Order: sequence, then C-alpha cells, then structure tokens
Amino acid sequence: MTKMRALVLEKQHELKLREIELPTEVGPGMVKIKVHTVGVCGSDVHYYTHGRIGPFVVDAPMVLGHEAAGTVIEVGEGVTDLAVSDRVCMEPGVPDPNSRAARLGLYNVDPAVTFWATPPVHGVLTPYVVHPATYTFRLPDNVSFAEGAMVEPFAVGMQAASKARIAPGDTAVVIGAGPIGTMVALAALAGGCARVIVADLAQPKLDIAARYQGIIPVNVRDKALVDEVNRLTGDWGADVVFECSGSPRAWEGIAALARPGGTIVAVGLPVDPVAVDISSLSTKELTIASVFRYAHQYERAIALLASGKVDLKPLISATFPFERAVEAFDRAAEGRPADVKLQIRVEA
Amino acid sequence: MTKMRALVLEKQHELKLREIELPTEVGPGMVKIKVHTVGVCGSDVHYYTHGRIGPFVVDAPMVLGHEAAGTVIEVGEGVTDLAVSDRVCMEPGVPDPNSRAARLGLYNVDPAVTFWATPPVHGVLTPYVVHPATYTFRLPDNVSFAEGAMVEPFAVGMQAASKARIAPGDTAVVIGAGPIGTMVALAALAGGCARVIVADLAQPKLDIAARYQGIIPVNVRDKALVDEVNRLTGDWGADVVFECSGSPRAWEGIAALARPGGTIVAVGLPVDPVAVDISSLSTKELTIASVFRYAHQYERAIALLASGKVDLKPLISATFPFERAVEAFDRAAEGRPADVKLQIRVEA
Amino acid sequence: MTKMRALVLEKQHELKLREIELPTEVGPGMVKIKVHTVGVCGSDVHYYTHGRIGPFVVDAPMVLGHEAAGTVIEVGEGVTDLAVSDRVCMEPGVPDPNSRAARLGLYNVDPAVTFWATPPVHGVLTPYVVHPATYTFRLPDNVSFAEGAMVEPFAVGMQAASKARIAPGDTAVVIGAGPIGTMVALAALAGGCARVIVADLAQPKLDIAARYQGIIPVNVRDKALVDEVNRLTGDWGADVVFECSGSPRAWEGIAALARPGGTIVAVGLPVDPVAVDISSLSTKELTIASVFRYAHQYERAIALLASGKVDLKPLISATFPFERAVEAFDRAAEGRPADVKLQIRVEA
Amino acid sequence: MTKMRALVLEKQHELKLREIELPTEVGPGMVKIKVHTVGVCGSDVHYYTHGRIGPFVVDAPMVLGHEAAGTVIEVGEGVTDLAVSDRVCMEPGVPDPNSRAARLGLYNVDPAVTFWATPPVHGVLTPYVVHPATYTFRLPDNVSFAEGAMVEPFAVGMQAASKARIAPGDTAVVIGAGPIGTMVALAALAGGCARVIVADLAQPKLDIAARYQGIIPVNVRDKALVDEVNRLTGDWGADVVFECSGSPRAWEGIAALARPGGTIVAVGLPVDPVAVDISSLSTKELTIASVFRYAHQYERAIALLASGKVDLKPLISATFPFERAVEAFDRAAEGRPADVKLQIRVEA
Repeated sequence: MTKMRALVLEKQHELKLREIELPTEVGPGMVKIKVHTVGVCGSDVHYYTHGRIGPFVVDAPMVLGHEAAGTVIEVGEGVTDLAVSDRVCMEPGVPDPNSRAARLGLYNVDPAVTFWATPPVHGVLTPYVVHPATYTFRLPDNVSFAEGAMVEPFAVGMQAASKARIAPGDTAVVIGAGPIGTMVALAALAGGCARVIVADLAQPKLDIAARYQGIIPVNVRDKALVDEVNRLTGDWGADVVFECSGSPRAWEGIAALARPGGTIVAVGLPVDPVAVDISSLSTKELTIASVFRYAHQYERAIALLASGKVDLKPLISATFPFERAVEAFDRAAEGRPADVKLQIRVEA
Repeated sequence: MTKMRALVLEKQHELKLREIELPTEVGPGMVKIKVHTVGVCGSDVHYYTHGRIGPFVVDAPMVLGHEAAGTVIEVGEGVTDLAVSDRVCMEPGVPDPNSRAARLGLYNVDPAVTFWATPPVHGVLTPYVVHPATYTFRLPDNVSFAEGAMVEPFAVGMQAASKARIAPGDTAVVIGAGPIGTMVALAALAGGCARVIVADLAQPKLDIAARYQGIIPVNVRDKALVDEVNRLTGDWGADVVFECSGSPRAWEGIAALARPGGTIVAVGLPVDPVAVDISSLSTKELTIASVFRYAHQYERAIALLASGKVDLKPLISATFPFERAVEAFDRAAEGRPADVKLQIRVEA
Repeated sequence: MTKMRALVLEKQHELKLREIELPTEVGPGMVKIKVHTVGVCGSDVHYYTHGRIGPFVVDAPMVLGHEAAGTVIEVGEGVTDLAVSDRVCMEPGVPDPNSRAARLGLYNVDPAVTFWATPPVHGVLTPYVVHPATYTFRLPDNVSFAEGAMVEPFAVGMQAASKARIAPGDTAVVIGAGPIGTMVALAALAGGCARVIVADLAQPKLDIAARYQGIIPVNVRDKALVDEVNRLTGDWGADVVFECSGSPRAWEGIAALARPGGTIVAVGLPVDPVAVDISSLSTKELTIASVFRYAHQYERAIALLASGKVDLKPLISATFPFERAVEAFDRAAEGRPADVKLQIRVEA
Repeated sequence: MTKMRALVLEKQHELKLREIELPTEVGPGMVKIKVHTVGVCGSDVHYYTHGRIGPFVVDAPMVLGHEAAGTVIEVGEGVTDLAVSDRVCMEPGVPDPNSRAARLGLYNVDPAVTFWATPPVHGVLTPYVVHPATYTFRLPDNVSFAEGAMVEPFAVGMQAASKARIAPGDTAVVIGAGPIGTMVALAALAGGCARVIVADLAQPKLDIAARYQGIIPVNVRDKALVDEVNRLTGDWGADVVFECSGSPRAWEGIAALARPGGTIVAVGLPVDPVAVDISSLSTKELTIASVFRYAHQYERAIALLASGKVDLKPLISATFPFERAVEAFDRAAEGRPADVKLQIRVEA
C-alpha cells in the first residue's frame, strides 16, 4: 500500500482530491499502470449526487473513475503479453475466471466481478493502479490516451451491437441520444448497420449524433418516431431497436418500431418495472435482448478505433487537468445537453 | 360451392350443427380432404363463449375448428407430393408466399395469413375441406388421425422449443400446465432438454404432465418455484423459462428463475401489458423470445410422433362423434382441469 | 413476344448484337423495365469463352447479362410496391415461392430457381425485360443506375459476409483480390469488420482494394500470409477467412489463418475437389460456411450504397455503349488485372 | 508425491501395473478423489499399440486412462461446491482459465490445456488422483460410477450434437457406428433429433445402435446410404450429417446426404487431408462444423443420464478388475465389433 493523491468521494455530495492509501504491489499476472486519462461516467456522477446506485451504497470513502488509459510501468511475474512503456487501456471489471459464468465466456454476469468505483472497490482517478494483465489492452500508436479512455463507454455500445446480431445492411433505431445512446449508434453502424435512426427530445444531442454519416436524427418533439421509421423502411420496421433512454415511455408501443422477427435491445435501465405489451411482441415474434456492461469487447473496440472506422474524438467535450477534477464532476452533474464526455487528464 | 353439414358459430353463445355452403373446387396446387378428426382448441371455445379474440370479431356465422386430420380424396393440377388416399394433417394458416415475411421464412408473421376459424375465415368442422398441398402433410402409417389432429397444438410447443435454442441437456421451466404448457414441456424434452420443471396451481394438470419422464411437477401452492429451481440447479437457474400461463403474476420475479445468459420464452399472452423489471433481466443478460403460432414445424412434429419420441395420445381426454360436437364445446367451455384435449370425430 | 435488339451468345466464341424475339407481356405481379445499365460478369464471359459452366451448356442462342438496372415502364395487376418511372435494379434469380427451400427463406438454393443468362434462360442485355415485382428493387435518388447494376455482384459479397456471422470489430482475411474477393472485402467491412487483410499475387488488384480504409493488402509473392495474419492479430488468427480465389492451393494450411473457434467461408469454387485437413480444422473447432449466390441481400446492399457506407463507383473500370457490347466482352475476356467491373450502357 | 500402483505405459507395446510416484498434495481449489471406475478409450489403446498420436509421443513412462469416476476423499482450501464422500466424475482436460480461448468459453481449444494420459501428463488408472474442483462434477444418486466413467466419451457426442445446432425434430445421419459414432447418435437423439440414420459396414455395431428407439441402422454393404436418406426424407436430405468414421471415403459425395442449408459435423479425424468438393457444398449452402473434445458438456451429460433420457449402460461391454487392466487393454486392442466400451474397476 502506498499513499497517493486521488479523487475521493467521501460521501454523497462530498468529493475531494486528497491523499489515500492504495495497493501498489505487483503480484503475479499483474501490471502497474501510470494513469494518463480518465473519463467521467454517468455512474461516477450518480454516486457523487445520490451516494448510491441501487444496492451499491457509498458508505466509506471511495476513489472514483473507471474509464482509464495509461502506461505500463511494471509487469508482474508471468506476464508475457505486456511490457514496460506499453500504452494501454483497462477493463474495469475483473471476474473470478473459474466461476461458472466466466467459464461459459459470460464473465460480465459473474456475480463475483469486482468493478472499479463500485462500492467497496476503489476507482482509478489516481496516478497509479495495479491491474491484471489479462484485462489490460495495448493501444496501437494511432490511438491516443484520450481515445483509450473512451474504449470503456464504447464497449457498452459494442456489447449492445453484438447482442443485436446485426446482419450487414440492417436498419436500427436508437431511442435516446445521451452518451450511451450515441455509443450504441456508432457501434451499430460500425457493426454492420447501413443506417441508424436516433431519436431524442434534445436537439443539441441529436446535432452531435447527426455529424456521423449513416445516422438519421429524429426529434420526437417534432414527429412521431413510428411514422419516421415506417417512412424510412417502407412500413416494414427496423431490424433492431436499441432502447437507450431508460424511460418507461419508450417501452410503450416499442414493438411498432420493429420489423417482424426483429430484435429489441434493452440498454437503458428504468428504475422501476416497465409495462411491456407481450401480445404486440408476439404478433411479430420479436426478441428482447439485454446487456450488462460488456465482455470480450475491448480488443474489438480498439481495432475499430485503430482502423479509422470509428472516430470517438468528436465526443470528448472537454478535458480537465487532475487538479480540477472536482470541477469536471460538477460540470458533469449539470448535465449540459451538448456534453457527451468529459475527461480528466491525470498525468501532467 | 357445395352445401355440407358443419359446426357453425352463429354468434356468441350460439353453436349449431347445420348445412352451410362451402367451397369445394380443387384449383391448381390444392387438395380436397375428407376430414376425419378435429381437436377443440381454446381459441375455438373462446369465440364460442366471448364472440371475439382481440380484434377478431365473429360478426357473421363461422365454421369452427382448425386442428384437423383426414384423407386426401382429390388432388389439383400440379400437385406431385400428395396422392388420393394419403392420410394427412393440415396447417391451418396459409400465407402469401411472396410477402416479405414469407420470403424470409417467417410466414407465420405475415399479416396476410388466412387462418381457419379466425373471422372471417371458416374452419374445418366439416366433412370436406379444400386446402393448399403445400400446407398439407402426409401422416406415416403409425400416426393415427387422432394424433394427426394433435399436430397443430403440438406445433405451438415446437415453435416455442425452437425459439428457445435449446442446447442438449438443458434444464427448462414451464410456467402453466394447461394444454399449451404441456405441449411446450413435451416439445422442450423432445427438443433436447434433460428435464423440465412444470409449475401450476392445479394438481390434476400437474399429475398428467408428471406421467412423462423428465418432467418435474411443482405445485406452487406448496412451494416457491424459485426455491425449487435453485435446489434443482445448484442455485444456477434454468437455461430456459417458458411462460405459458399468460398471467401477469408470472412475470414478477421471472428473471430469478433463469441462469445468467438464459432465455425466457413468452408463450402465454396476457390481455394487458405486464410489468417487466428490465434491470433484473440485464443483470443476467437474459433474452426474451416470443412466438406466434408456428412455422416449419409440421414435418418435425410428425417425425417426433412417428419415431416414438413423443406420445400425445395420453393427452386426448375424450372423443365425441360429429353429431355431439356442440356437447364437446360445452364440456370444453367448463374447463375441467383434467381435460387436456377434446376431439371430435367428423368421419363416421 | 416482341422482336428486340439483344446481345446474343450464338454458341461458344460467337457473340452478336442482333434482333431476337423475347417475351414482353406483363402478367399479374410482373413489371416491365427499360434496361439502363448491365454489368459484365465473369460467368457471362465464361459462357462466351467456354460455352458452358459445369452442367449448364449453351446449346441454343442465349442473351447474356444478369447485373442490371433500369426504369419501370409498366406494372402488372396486383403490383403495389412499384410504379411507372421508378428507378430499379433486379435480382436475376426467381424461385418457386412454394418450394421447400424457398419457404424456409433459402430461396437461393431452391433447385427450381430460374436465373438470367443461365441456359436455357435469357439474360438482360436487351432494351426491355419483364420481371416479377417481388424481385425488383427501387433505387434511392442518390444511387445511380451504374451503382444499381453493381448490386448483383455486391450481393454475392453480402451473402458471404452474412454467412460469416461477423461480430462487430472482427478481423477478416480475404484470399483473392478479384472482383468477387473485393466485393467480399467491402461487404465484410460494411458488415462489421474492423479490418480486412486481402491477399493476392497481382499488385494492381491489391492496389485497387487498398484504396478502401480498413483493407490491409498483402502480396503473397512478398510475404507469407500466415505470418502477416499472426503479426496483425498477436498470433491469435483472424475471426473469419473468406476463400475467394477458388485455388486448391489456398486450402492448404488455411486453418492456420483462423483463430480458435473461427469461421472459413468458401466463396471461390475450385473445379475439382480440394484437399482439406480435417484435423487442423478440429484442433481449432473451425467452421466452414459456404455460399450460393445470395438471398435477401438486395435491400440491404442498396441501403449500404444509399447511406454512403459503401462506395462501389471506383470499381467500375469502364463503361461501353450498347453498340460496343461485344468489345466489352472481348476486353473482359482479356482479364486485365486492373479491370474490376466493365459495364454496358444499354439505354442511349 | 506418493507411491501408488498404476497402469503404466512404459513405451509402445509395454504396459505394466506397477508402483509409480504421483502427486497427492491437495492445493487450494483442488480435490483428492479415490478412483472407482475408468473406461478404456481408443486413444489410450492407440498410445499402447502405436506409442504416439500425431505430435504426442510417449517418450517416458505414462499412466493411462482419462474416463474416470470416483469419490471425493479430501477437499482443498476454497472448495465449496464439493464435499468429502461426494460421488463424482472428472473432466480430464484442464485449461489456463485466463487464456484467450478459455475466456471466450472455448476452453477446449486452449493450446495450454493439460489432458490426462496425453504425453507428458499422467492419466488416472491409479487409486487416487488430485484434480481441480472446477472440473470435477457430482453424480446424482441414480447415476452409477460405471455410468459416471461413460460421461467423458458421451461428452464427445454431446459436443458434436451441440455444434450441430439441432432444431427439435431434425433428422440426422451418423456415418460410422463405432463407440464415438454411437455416442454421437445418442446425443443427437437426446439433443432434439426425431431420428438418426446410422451407417456402418459392421452389422454387430449396427445391431447395438439399433436397440435404441429413433436409430435407423443402414448397412452400407447392402444399400447406398444416399438412397436410404432420400427415401426417408422425401428426397430432401438430412438436417445434420455427423461424419464419425474418419474415412476419406465418407467425404466423397457427403453433400448429397444433407438438405439445402444443412450442416455436416466432422467428428472422425482422417489421418491425411481428404478431398472435399466445395462446389457440392456451395450448391446447397452447407456448413461444416468441427469439434475438439468438448466444453461445458459434463453437467448436461450427467443431467441426461439422471433424467433417464439417455441410457449408456447397454454400451458397457465388459468390466475388468484393476489387477486385470492389461488384459482389458489387450482385448480393446483386438477391436471386437461388438465391444463398445470396456471399463476397469480400480476400487476393489
């Protein structure tokens, strides 16, 4: 354990950049990483503003941050895939590799996963972190630290796109143009969709999404989404509907957006149960897939950034130095519609 | 058109065995069938007792019956797969083969499907019917007419089992031991499950299901289903959960029955939207599949009956001669718990 | 039947632009199309130079051409999706919609398919053609006739990409950079691959492919493909290997290119059986998928062209007026490495 | 390390029951098992008769046996799922859980797998063995040790059935009625097939397989397999063809056995590359799947034995006491056609 400066959530509403003791021993299979850039995630902000997310309660000081990129500065015994000075990004969740879910390849739904910045596990808004090499991924030269720190939220989009089983040339609908909806839309396009109809009420969010070729923005204040989908698909419906708003309203009539045999992917998480009309699903034999974080997406996400198929840089709305990390969180808590992603540069 | 005796639903609550004009011309691609046995389906009974099912309203006299088997007595031009005297059963729904859904292989969700005994289309509680050869299937010698008339409801179970993408040796849960739940349980066992946990409140229904090897009955008056599933699966959950009760209550906590990465198949159709907890689905990355009737199941269902892997005969609770067809419907309307399937023998 | 000018293959080596009687009656469900542009396909050229392809022998004069776009000038009874003056492209194969394969959605493998310019069926290097509306697809305003005539060969690539079940961010290898290999590479990129390693011996072909972002050309005269794949994938292998050369040599050691659990898609058709090492497939549990033409790809292909995700215009190497159609075939028969696609503009 | 009596393959052709030092320390996550019954596998016999299998050469004394069941007699630290006196069977291959293949759920194709009785790893024809709890599976009360020792070869059949993606009611063909072919046929039936056509030249093998309901034996000395398949499927072909003979001859014309869109599963391993006609695969768009041992099959296999859906007891041809283990191997080396599985009872 070593004392280092970190962004600590002391309790709800109280965030401090201060010294804290954190583990620094590099055991077998582990690497030590000098943290360069960390993105601010909605869940980090939610712990700050609400002190909890569902059953996860902040009842002791906890370092925030889980979207991180940095540089390997030490490798533990048995690590062969990584070397000192490798530029990397890290998957924040680490499962028990021998759990039944992990053995099936579903390590994201292993109940034993430990995940950065989820109580009681510390996050990485710190200068250094020790992490398993298995969940640390090398960045190609043409992918910056800032982009590397975007891999985590993009992996959520990738997981949704993977679960959708997109066929090449599909048409998708994304309900909700927040950061996750936008990530899902980009992953769906990169993952094979010809076009993605993105729906929201907030025009600034739609304007950002609309910069990408293949995205068709629909402001649902102006027109009914179902009419637009019908118009664009010749009354057939979309192959895939990604629900990313988390709003119970979005689930009303959602079946009307999908084609017969289509898929709905539940990405947004409504707080309470939502009303779902089973009959309307059945008439079209729709499938609802759900996602929980991601598994096996980091290499794929990095490959898409490296090849130029996906450009996440326009989504980085502002970057704050480590010393102004609290300010970054306060701005994130404002929820400005044009802010997609705020990042904190930890390494000076 | 020819006059023939048929079981006609004049309007809600009024059922008569009387003469009616029905088409008998055998066009190209069609066959004429002498009807032997017809099963009484819940939907037939529902038209009798309620006069409608959702948007389908009986506003003119309509012949009932859609679970039928019989003998080919005439074949139209171009029919090569069937011959006079072939014993057959018939798929009651006929799609537009050039519709977009049908071309994809999803002919059951083609909105243009015409389906026997669904207003305004007449059913087959008649001595003769003309039907496309494409949707008429030969019965092997060792499959009786009575079993042939069971293929239709069993095909519903087969469709559910197919959509579940069962892996060999899976464990399934079936909620609801009515006729459809029982068909689903048998299809799931034949389709690869090692065991199927069937849950209901009515002990007579469970007793019938429990006669089949591989079915584990659970009376949910006596014990909590989730506890039984956990006990039987080592707290892992079932690979597939078939919801066949149509009860909104069944959807509460349904995610707790499934394993991480598992599938819920919505077979029962609740009248109103049901409350679904998206978060509990997501935590386990569950998928919800839905089914609408069936497609491509008749040959498969017949093959399972012929090979002896599935025995539906114990589910035929009583057989009525055609002259007592109204009596059969009145008994079906009673809903006796030990009645799985009532059949009417049309051919003397 | 009406006499019209057409490009007729009289017999092997003898091609004439001359009058021929062709059907022009517009029956129910049919449309009449004024042909605008027709691409020259390798199979057309093969009939010209060899007089046959496998069991299909040209033993009577046959009009060539099956990659076509044009304008609807008459619609038959019952056609509701198309109207006069619609710009369209056409799928050259028409199945029996009631065949067992077609009902399953696999209409391309229906043995009863009739396919343009496959003996004894005439092709469309003619001013007019009558075709089922079901297999005629409207072109959006931003897709030209020339691009419309590219949909057919691109659909072959789309079919291969679909059968590969690409996951978003996959890495693919394409063996063979001829017209089909290039189409497959573009479809694989559009269909979700992050990068596609394209291998060939002919540098001009590789240079054309390499203009597309995401394609990594490998000249196998210079380096071993397996070494490049290992270098680019960290010794893991490609998720998908598309064999598009049709060369038996390509099948030697092909398993070494794929990752454990990966897929090989057989696109190229070797004339004779090839030697396949089953043990090397098994050690990695590889799957070999095969493709035959395409099914359900036209709408998807058109959507990708319309959205700008795929640009096929750089692949049109030259366009000939109808009067110089024989010249176009003679040039195609030369097989210049830098010629990807030659087209014939039928409408003046 | 402890000295214990074991069946040691000293070198090719030289097998001895003698004392050898083997590890007995029970580390964290491990269990110690008193071995009860071990089956004799073709690979064990092949090491005995040939001294090698492909690249695996017996160049030091090696204990044979990998199909084992027994009783837990000690549990290591952290083991919670197993307890002393649990009756169990064991998966002989143990992967690196952090390897890329294992993380994807494909642990069987992890090159780092260590596998019992595969040089240089000792097998389990010994009184005691120490094994990871993760790969040790509890046997229900109604599954005997002898059946428990059959789980390993049955898991091979299960893997093949799983890779075939059987739909309920499918028709399969199994080429080769040896032990593996028979296991595959039973797994295919349990996994959803209505019927399995099993082909072989040896009538005694077919007679054993034919005892199971749903298996249709075909002696290919008497009739052409393709004719039988066509007769039984109405000229459509089988949904799945399992090649279990390993004979190059079996691959000739194999496409003719499958239906359009069907699957061939390569289970048998020909020594040399075999000639495969890609064109005949493509015309039907067939898929070839391959299998390597198994992954995630033990629980499923045990569940099928426990529920009574699969009965492997008739396949145990003879059981030898440990003292006569060499004799068991000599008989296995004879290859009597009516011997499906020989077992050795290690525990007195």
